Parts: sequence; structure tokens; C-alpha cells
Amino acid sequence: MGDRRYKTADPAGLTRKDGGRRTEDEDSGRGGVTGDPIQQPSEPPKGGQQMEAPTIAQRDALNKRESGVSASSPMRLRMEQFIKENQEKIVKALEGVDGRRFKTDKWDRPGGGGGITCVLQDGNVFEKAGVNTSVVYGTLPRAAISKMRVNHKALDPDVESLEFFAAGLSLVLHPINPMVPTVHLNYRYFETANADGSTNAWWFGGGTDLTPSYLFDEDVIAFHRKIKDACDAHDKNYYPRFKQWCDDYFYVKHRGETRGVGGIFFDDLDETEKDQESLFSFVQSCLGAFLPSYLPIVQKRKDLPYSDREKQWQQLRRGRYVEFNLVHDRGTAFGLNTPGARIESILMSLPLTARWQYQHEPEKGSREERLVSVLKKPVDWV
Amino acid sequence: MGDRRYKTADPAGLTRKDGGRRTEDEDSGRGGVTGDPIQQPSEPPKGGQQMEAPTIAQRDALNKRESGVSASSPMRLRMEQFIKENQEKIVKALEGVDGRRFKTDKWDRPGGGGGITCVLQDGNVFEKAGVNTSVVYGTLPRAAISKMRVNHKALDPDVESLEFFAAGLSLVLHPINPMVPTVHLNYRYFETANADGSTNAWWFGGGTDLTPSYLFDEDVIAFHRKIKDACDAHDKNYYPRFKQWCDDYFYVKHRGETRGVGGIFFDDLDETEKDQESLFSFVQSCLGAFLPSYLPIVQKRKDLPYSDREKQWQQLRRGRYVEFNLVHDRGTAFGLNTPGARIESILMSLPLTARWQYQHEPEKGSREERLVSVLKKPVDWV
Repeated sequence: MGDRRYKTADPAGLTRKDGGRRTEDEDSGRGGVTGDPIQQPSEPPKGGQQMEAPTIAQRDALNKRESGVSASSPMRLRMEQFIKENQEKIVKALEGVDGRRFKTDKWDRPGGGGGITCVLQDGNVFEKAGVNTSVVYGTLPRAAISKMRVNHKALDPDVESLEFFAAGLSLVLHPINPMVPTVHLNYRYFETANADGSTNAWWFGGGTDLTPSYLFDEDVIAFHRKIKDACDAHDKNYYPRFKQWCDDYFYVKHRGETRGVGGIFFDDLDETEKDQESLFSFVQSCLGAFLPSYLPIVQKRKDLPYSDREKQWQQLRRGRYVEFNLVHDRGTAFGLNTPGARIESILMSLPLTARWQYQHEPEKGSREERLVSVLKKPVDWV
Repeated sequence: MGDRRYKTADPAGLTRKDGGRRTEDEDSGRGGVTGDPIQQPSEPPKGGQQMEAPTIAQRDALNKRESGVSASSPMRLRMEQFIKENQEKIVKALEGVDGRRFKTDKWDRPGGGGGITCVLQDGNVFEKAGVNTSVVYGTLPRAAISKMRVNHKALDPDVESLEFFAAGLSLVLHPINPMVPTVHLNYRYFETANADGSTNAWWFGGGTDLTPSYLFDEDVIAFHRKIKDACDAHDKNYYPRFKQWCDDYFYVKHRGETRGVGGIFFDDLDETEKDQESLFSFVQSCLGAFLPSYLPIVQKRKDLPYSDREKQWQQLRRGRYVEFNLVHDRGTAFGLNTPGARIESILMSLPLTARWQYQHEPEKGSREERLVSVLKKPVDWV
């Protein structure tokens, strides 16, 4: 569970030695993306007395300063721009629904990059809502490269370290009303660089999934349908594959149930899957589907009446959410084990409040029981 | 952190081949403990058509039925009796303080053994209190044996599997009043058996530690002093070693702070440390010190007034407690990864309610800030 990969067998594609630069075939009709050889900076990197080769962080900073970001910029810069624009758009839309403002923290990483953490706590609609972007420039040690090579053969096994870039948008919304589901979204891009700054390996990952305390089938169906439409526009196989991957990944093994009613999840989508431009376009569609898939549910359910008992059930479900995130989620584990990581941004995904009650059993025939039965045996919603 | 071992270098003791039976030296003046060869059962084991050698579970069941438990019984039976007696005593004492009754669940394990889970929820003094005993008879696969051999050389590396026995009492009390600290206690005994049912390797582990939301130095000092007295009666080195081990083990690495203000923690205490009888006697003293170390604090603080803000701080600290237990605690991880384990008993340690607030910072000079500074740099209390 959770480690399923749906790789197509394409060893030729996996072992290309051109550092991930676009071939003519990939370039057709879309305009250069990572093909433009990155210019050496015309000024020495800051603090660089030794005239070492510039890092990709330095190259990117210069590139942005001199040329801005366009369709011909490296994917790193395009992804960064894309997630930041979407963060702004989503934050604005959520503020519109909630009536209260997010608190925004911008932070820098010493090695390059940084992030923007937007959190709304104790809102009118959301108990806790976090919308984060992060951009990381860093160096992968040999051990980390070996691990990643399992899924990305383009990674050079013979180097001591590799520069890498990672950028992602992630979002978790925990509403107050137990009739409104919690939602999680994460889309990310990862790249390693050759010594000359050119792209070595790259991949996209991400997903969107819904975690209700009370099931409204029509909401879940509409949510899945919107995501399916976004997938279908790119590949009819995406939705069934990534829906299954989501059910497998968000499985709380020790409880024998999924975290929620799913959505999609995928990881390591690289050139063995499709060309970079197509995958970026797919990720854009997925992220674009988010507000239309979730906001209508919020609007419809946020003012429904609920009882203390129902609020308490929501709190118990939040406890399970915490269990998944702290015990099973690989992203959280990775973050917590990264020295110097920003813990508050990583654990922003945890709910404001949660509850653990010894041996709570939903009543026979209750709505609570129905939810649990669906979590124990995932449903094909569309 | 958390993996420190304070082994004395005694390779001779580590590699003894007598299956852990007591030597004359160890027997001096204490009466036989594991020395008595275990009798073959006089009736075939239940459901055993094939007349296989009886398991230790079967041997123990027969032994109990025929002879009861006395100072000459195997340590397995003595430890089981000891923890069950103490569970009863502790539950009674806590009911006396709280005024409400614990709910008791007895459960059996298919392979032998079982447990008693006592939980008090929404009491007058305790928000959630769990006092568990469990007794497990099972089989260790080769991989688990290899892991354990790192600390216990007596384990035979050449067998495919080994029967084992584990018994322990564990307890977590989360009070309602934020001025009363949470307390955790766990004492356990582990044994592996040779094919003829004799003891192969054995060890004791455990500890007691305190987790306040608000510091009352005199309470923490009195708590540590009681534990130190219990340790000192056996070995003057125990308290300083096990106090340090506790600070190391209950370290929430990703927060850079300890879970609480410590106590003692130890593991793998076997014949390389002291003879079995001495260690059992030490564990008895530790457990015996629990009520005198904790109840006076409860009595003194349970009726103190507190504000909503203070209750909220307690909830945030409970969140940290959850983080330690789900992310770092090896016992919890082991339990969650054991197929067929009783999840509700394992996660009984989690508080009824917890809270995660983005970037909560205690006020300068506040009591909350003082607590955090102590957790970041453990104090020698006695």
C-alpha cells in the first residue's frame, strides 16, 4: 500500500543521458521550455570569491531578474510562478467564503528558495486553513540519490551529490461545520541539475482528496467528477490509475480504513510517463479543478445545523487525520526528518483540535457507521 | 538520541549457554526462581492431536492451575501476577481520587495471554486515564531475533523462530486541570524460550515520567526524589543513568524539546546488568514508588483555579504529546505495526483532546515560556 508505482516500461527513456533537455520531438509546437541552455551569469555569484560554477539558485535568480518568467523559462521558474499565482487565487477565494483574512508568512531558506505560508485560524467557516507554497534549492547527498534512483534511472549513481530544486503548493482546509469535509491538495515539481546547471532528472507529483465526517454522496460524486474531467482532458487512464493510487496511499493501515473518500494521487511522473510540457499542463488542470470541485460543497453545507454529538464525531475523525499524517504520511515524515525544515509549515496540516476516545463505536445504522463502512471499502464514485 | 544503551561490557555473561537458568551465585539467599525445570503437562495440550512439545503458554497455564503462583514460579508468572495486583491497586487509588469508576475490558490473545484495559474517560479529575496490563505469548520470526540480538547475545541466531513471552503494565493519566501534570508509567518483562521450554534470554524495561503544562518546581522535585529513592535502594548509579536515558528517549526531535520533565527510563536490563531476582526487585520498587510520587501532586493541584487561556495551553501541550507518541515512540510504532495488535489499547495513551495552533509562541517571561525553556534544556531536579 502506498508504494504502488504505475510505471510504463521504457528503459530507453529512463536512461537518457542528455540531462533531461528537450528533444525536437518533445518540442513540437509548444515552444522551448528547458531546452535553452542556461546562461552563465554575467556577474559573479554573490559572495563567490572563488569563481565556482554558479548554483542553479544563482542561475535562476539571475534569469528571473534579467528576463522575467515566460513560457521559454526553465520549468523551475514556471512552476514557481504557477504555484504562487494559484496560492494567491485560492487564498482570495477562501477569504471570500470565510469573511476573514489569512495571515501570511514569507520565509527564506539559507541555501536558496523559501516559502509563503498562509494560515487562517478560527475563521467563520474554517477552523484552520493552510495554503503553502515552498521553493527549495538544495543538495542531495549520495544516500538520497540512491533511494531516488529506484524510480528515476536518469539520476547519476556516480556522483557524491546533486543539486536539486523542489517547488510545491500544498493546502489543507479544516472547516468548522462537521457537514463540510476537510480537503487536502498538493502539487509539486522536483528537478536535479547536472554540474553545468542543465536538467538531470525531473518529475511531478501531487493530488487532491476529500475527508468528510458526514457523507453527502452527491458532494463526493461531484468532487470526483470535477477531478475526473480534469484528468480525462489529458489521458483517459489517469483518473482510474490515480484514484486507485489515492485510495492506496491514504490508507490508515493500523485502523484498516482510508483517511477519506479519496480523489487522486500520483508521484514520480517523469519522461517515462509523458513529456514535461504535457505533464505540467496536466498538473495545471488538476490545480485548476480545485476551487470548482470544493467551493460548491462549502457553500452548500457551511450553514447546515449540527449537534454537539456531530461536532464530537468530527473531532474523532480529526484524530484519525492526525494519525495518518503523523504515522503514515511520507511527506510529513520526510519534513520532520529534514534538518532545518520549517516545522510549523509542515504541521500546518494538523487540525486545530482533535479527539481520541477509547473504543468509540458508531451506532448501528447511523450516518457515522455508514462513513466508516465506506472508508473500510472504498467506493467508485463516478 | 533514544537509542543510548548503558551496557556493562560483560561478554561472558552475554553469551551464557545455560538458557538463562540461575547459577548458584545468583540463587544465594533468594530462593529458586527460574531454576525449577518446568514440568511437562500431564495432559495433552488443547487441540493438540499431534503430541507436539507444549508451548510455554500451555506450560504456564498448567503450572498456574496446578501450583498457583509463588516465589518459586517462573518469572513469567510472577511478573504477570505482580502487574495485575498493581493494576488493581492503582485503579482503586485513582478511583478514590476521581470519584468515578474505570471501565474494564478483558481480552484474550488467540496465541496465548491477553490483557486488561482499564479506562476512565471524562472523570472529575481525569480527562482520560488508562491503566493497562498485557501478557503476550507468541513466536519471534528470525528477522525480529536478529534485531534483538544487538542487545541480547543470549538469543540463538541459528533458529528459525523462538517462542517469547512479554508482560507489562502501562499507564497514562491526562488530568482535566492544567495545573496537574500528565504522567506515564510502563514496566515490562520479556523472555524467550528454548525448545524445551526453559528460559533462553530475558530482560526488564520501563520507566515513569511526568509531563506538566505548568511547572511547580516543588512537585517535580518531589516526584524525582521519590523515584530516586526507589533507585538508590538498589544501585546508586541507577537514578543518574536512567534519568539521563529518560531525557534522551522522550525527546521530540523535530521540536527540539523533551516531552516532559522526565523521570526514569531503562530498557534491556538483563543478566549483564544484574541477576534476574535483583532486577525484578528493582522494578517492584519503581512501580511501588508510583502512587506516592504522583498522588500528592494531584491532591495538591486538582482544585486550583485556571483560565481558558491556561486550558488552551494544556491542549497545545497535549498536541506535542501526540506528536511524540505517534512520531517517535518505539513502543507505539511496534504496536501499530504488529498484526492483530489491539489498537485501542495501544492508542489509549493519546489524550481525549489536543490542539495544534499555527506558530503559537508563549509570551516573554510567562510561565508557559519557562516550561518550554526547561523542556529545551533538561534540569537536574535532585
